[in-house]
Amino acid sequence: MNLEEIVRATYEEVKNTDDKGRLASYIPELVNVDSESFGVFISTIDHTNFGIGNFNEKFSIQSIAKVLSLSLAYSILGEKIWTRLGVEPSGTAFNSLVQLEADKGIPRNPFINAGAIVISDILLSNLKNPKEEFLSFIRSISNNSELNYSRKIAASEKSVGFRNVALCNFIKSFGNIENEPSDVLDFYFDLCSLEMNCKELSELFLFLANNGCNIFANNSILTKSQCKRINALMQTCGFYDESGEFAFKVGLPGKSGVGGGIVAIHPNHYAIAVWSPKLNEKGNSYKGMKFLEEFTTKSQLSIF
Amino acid sequence: MNLEEIVRATYEEVKNTDDKGRLASYIPELVNVDSESFGVFISTIDHTNFGIGNFNEKFSIQSIAKVLSLSLAYSILGEKIWTRLGVEPSGTAFNSLVQLEADKGIPRNPFINAGAIVISDILLSNLKNPKEEFLSFIRSISNNSELNYSRKIAASEKSVGFRNVALCNFIKSFGNIENEPSDVLDFYFDLCSLEMNCKELSELFLFLANNGCNIFANNSILTKSQCKRINALMQTCGFYDESGEFAFKVGLPGKSGVGGGIVAIHPNHYAIAVWSPKLNEKGNSYKGMKFLEEFTTKSQLSIF
Amino acid sequence: MNLEEIVRATYEEVKNTDDKGRLASYIPELVNVDSESFGVFISTIDHTNFGIGNFNEKFSIQSIAKVLSLSLAYSILGEKIWTRLGVEPSGTAFNSLVQLEADKGIPRNPFINAGAIVISDILLSNLKNPKEEFLSFIRSISNNSELNYSRKIAASEKSVGFRNVALCNFIKSFGNIENEPSDVLDFYFDLCSLEMNCKELSELFLFLANNGCNIFANNSILTKSQCKRINALMQTCGFYDESGEFAFKVGLPGKSGVGGGIVAIHPNHYAIAVWSPKLNEKGNSYKGMKFLEEFTTKSQLSIF
Amino acid sequence: MNLEEIVRATYEEVKNTDDKGRLASYIPELVNVDSESFGVFISTIDHTNFGIGNFNEKFSIQSIAKVLSLSLAYSILGEKIWTRLGVEPSGTAFNSLVQLEADKGIPRNPFINAGAIVISDILLSNLKNPKEEFLSFIRSISNNSELNYSRKIAASEKSVGFRNVALCNFIKSFGNIENEPSDVLDFYFDLCSLEMNCKELSELFLFLANNGCNIFANNSILTKSQCKRINALMQTCGFYDESGEFAFKVGLPGKSGVGGGIVAIHPNHYAIAVWSPKLNEKGNSYKGMKFLEEFTTKSQLSIF
Repeated sequence: MNLEEIVRATYEEVKNTDDKGRLASYIPELVNVDSESFGVFISTIDHTNFGIGNFNEKFSIQSIAKVLSLSLAYSILGEKIWTRLGVEPSGTAFNSLVQLEADKGIPRNPFINAGAIVISDILLSNLKNPKEEFLSFIRSISNNSELNYSRKIAASEKSVGFRNVALCNFIKSFGNIENEPSDVLDFYFDLCSLEMNCKELSELFLFLANNGCNIFANNSILTKSQCKRINALMQTCGFYDESGEFAFKVGLPGKSGVGGGIVAIHPNHYAIAVWSPKLNEKGNSYKGMKFLEEFTTKSQLSIF
Repeated sequence: MNLEEIVRATYEEVKNTDDKGRLASYIPELVNVDSESFGVFISTIDHTNFGIGNFNEKFSIQSIAKVLSLSLAYSILGEKIWTRLGVEPSGTAFNSLVQLEADKGIPRNPFINAGAIVISDILLSNLKNPKEEFLSFIRSISNNSELNYSRKIAASEKSVGFRNVALCNFIKSFGNIENEPSDVLDFYFDLCSLEMNCKELSELFLFLANNGCNIFANNSILTKSQCKRINALMQTCGFYDESGEFAFKVGLPGKSGVGGGIVAIHPNHYAIAVWSPKLNEKGNSYKGMKFLEEFTTKSQLSIF
Repeated sequence: MNLEEIVRATYEEVKNTDDKGRLASYIPELVNVDSESFGVFISTIDHTNFGIGNFNEKFSIQSIAKVLSLSLAYSILGEKIWTRLGVEPSGTAFNSLVQLEADKGIPRNPFINAGAIVISDILLSNLKNPKEEFLSFIRSISNNSELNYSRKIAASEKSVGFRNVALCNFIKSFGNIENEPSDVLDFYFDLCSLEMNCKELSELFLFLANNGCNIFANNSILTKSQCKRINALMQTCGFYDESGEFAFKVGLPGKSGVGGGIVAIHPNHYAIAVWSPKLNEKGNSYKGMKFLEEFTTKSQLSIF
Repeated sequence: MNLEEIVRATYEEVKNTDDKGRLASYIPELVNVDSESFGVFISTIDHTNFGIGNFNEKFSIQSIAKVLSLSLAYSILGEKIWTRLGVEPSGTAFNSLVQLEADKGIPRNPFINAGAIVISDILLSNLKNPKEEFLSFIRSISNNSELNYSRKIAASEKSVGFRNVALCNFIKSFGNIENEPSDVLDFYFDLCSLEMNCKELSELFLFLANNGCNIFANNSILTKSQCKRINALMQTCGFYDESGEFAFKVGLPGKSGVGGGIVAIHPNHYAIAVWSPKLNEKGNSYKGMKFLEEFTTKSQLSIF
């Protein structure tokens, strides 16, 4: 079977399994989606593309945006970025404050909320118009001027984001936030509100399967080494306290969001985006996880 | 450069760097080694082999043995082994009891001490002569009848292994140890005392680069899926709370031991063993880590 | 010796000991005090009063105010107040977030910051003009219309109070704060900024030595049972993670603040206030602790 | 009402309330008691004594023995005992290992299991025949040659005491146990197995209400200061993570055991022992707690 056939077969198989997940409830606006949605899109570095199901519907990518903000910050600061945060899996939930206390305000990695908030602070300190420049960054990578924030989602998250306010102020109390917490959070919530569909998402992440190089414009976003390192980070930290499980069962670097999206990378081969909004107990898309597990089993294309 | 040349060049480079590590002090017998030792051996699945430095000297592989006991237990029980322990990185030190309390006696993964003790318990329950059968297992994999435990190291560790006694009894208090703690620990300490040299170690681990298949006898030790999963576990959990750092900088699945050994796998390519007894602050070989970082940078052969 | 003689003798003794403490540094404005200040005032229920040293100088009572806000809230809500917070010692630092995560937003007791923030929220929900009514409350207890907040101290604390902002938002994320975090904190910082001298402080707390009854106006502030319970709380939780030490060495219920004040109660006998701004490692007045230990040893008037 | 009348009235009241407690299940032998048993005995320093209900039936005093072993160790070593353990409430369960890890093997106080194990180790190092000498100690205090260990209970606890084995070896790993863990635990389990009835228990603890002085032989067991300090410790740490609640509601120093016994002290007045084997969720006697709360409310004789 070629990739398209494997995607199709896996999709049909998973589509009909009983979805034991639940819609994310902690951001009010996130429940306004069709809970049965299920889409997949794969983009390869040799320009094969294929989508199935609801691959054309936009959804909130939420934490998946953390890979993009990290990429931009990493491209600006290089390795000195790691004085502000670590590269270790946290072993705890994505929004835990416990570890941060032990670690004195240095977040374990850029994919837990604390880490992504520090990345937002870094961008705020290094960009003139952070929101616009970030949009330009991702639009240029994917050659897609349509990508945008969702004001509605951002506002909804701000109205209930007390724990993120707590995280940001807690880190600030350790001296690891330079800007005003309210400004940092305003930017952070906007980042999380990015909307796109599976096609856009897989195309946007394709540079990470291509040694950091933009396949559309053929320019370098990250160095080869930086790209490799972001992939390693996604592998070890991309799924909160289910990261080990994902490496174990899927065997690809990837990142999930509570909007139900997951993107995974097979270095030198492809980027694949899956979306299905009902989440398992760990906060990752139930069908998305199932799909990727089956897909790598069938394709035998894990990195391990 | 071919692999041999890269190994040689990297070796020379790292050999002369200032070793900021320290000998492991917590097992008395472990200090009786030449702290300047430094050896490397690489074995590829297409039968290329090359060693340099002290690759022929035996050392205590310590925690590296956890991959081998897991392999044997996994081959016996299959997936149901995961009812007894998890596959997530711990985010804490290798011998922490804290997390075990929160997790009610289910160790996070098979490579922290708690997990390896549960694996020892499983082997004790499933083998008639556990110590002999385990030796047979590893001797057959590597076609090497010389591999053996070190009575001296095992005795030395037993004399100071109070924390492991604590761990085992703590897990037993949650009902996740079936046998007598003293029997489980006796077996566990023997496993950790295994001695071999870099050549033997890389040859022994080559089956994990070869989809679970023994390259010498051409028989299957683990299924392809099980092999992939053990590699994923080494990637996410093989270096205690430096696992993320190793993935980040080296980008290969691997496992280290406090004896100063590290073994790493490049799936479908090779297994490489490094030994240098002085450890960094996280308990991993200082020069070993440096060597592997440089080696994968030079060879550009990370999995990411 | 009578009480006055014991106070005098103890004061002279402690005055000349080497003060190993340090000024609190975390609120900028708090360092603007004479670090050598040392004053004591004792008020008994049979109207004996005596002061020595800098007992007439005002200082920031900081956390001591938590007993007063609790008293007011307890007098309004009665026992149902304990659905919002607990009565157990925390075993951790005064501003820890760790425990709060395990306890799902229910603070361990009213004297850690988290608990006092919840009490502020309760007062905000139950009073029309919280700041004014709280002032009236303490002014009426002590028959002293001079008591007031310090705008300077409150502003100073607000400018650096990120951890308290974190605590309040964290508790809000668990649903245990009813009002806007910024309003709750504004009130909380004002409470902590209360200023008075040792004489005023001991007179203000005398009702807790008098079964909850105001000795000046002879009216009841708290029921006998409520008064007993607040004393018990001060005994077990009044000195953060030095509460056991204080019970062990002093043997009286009491409360300290980072401004260097300590007030202690001997039920049915007296209230005593000590002030000396340099703090020991646990954040309690170095000389204040020493004085009270010596004082109860000499007077043999511990509750135990 | 005099004390006898108050005891009687309170007893009748509590006897008929619905007992929501459960028998301790973690030591097999402990379930072999009549779960409806309920007895009280009060002994005053002016030789008034009164018992009601099952005050003459022996039960396993379990953790209450920790006060006695501490008393003996404290009388031998004096204040330098506190280099081996602390005096702070733990804020966690009685057998937690978490805190011990953070505190590097120094138990928070002598009444959590970890602390009592260290006390056992101290006695082992300082006595020739620890078990015999400890018995002599308590027999002489209470003028009662009948007091003894229960071999049955000790054996039963040993058979399931894995967590205590874990605790002891864990502390040993930090260097805070001098003797062999198995010897320390053998002594510890014997101490916990002490059996007596309410009359014997209240008479045995009367010296703590009498400034450390044995009322029967009129000799001093502890200094006045040591006695006061043990009472303070019971107040802050005597009921595990319900210590605050006990201080709050009962207002007396006391100690409970999972055998359903509680003893409380009113300094300079009396010792009172209550026994009822069904425990509340925190592991303290359900009816015992209720009785003491009502008793101090009625008698108005709290220390606060």
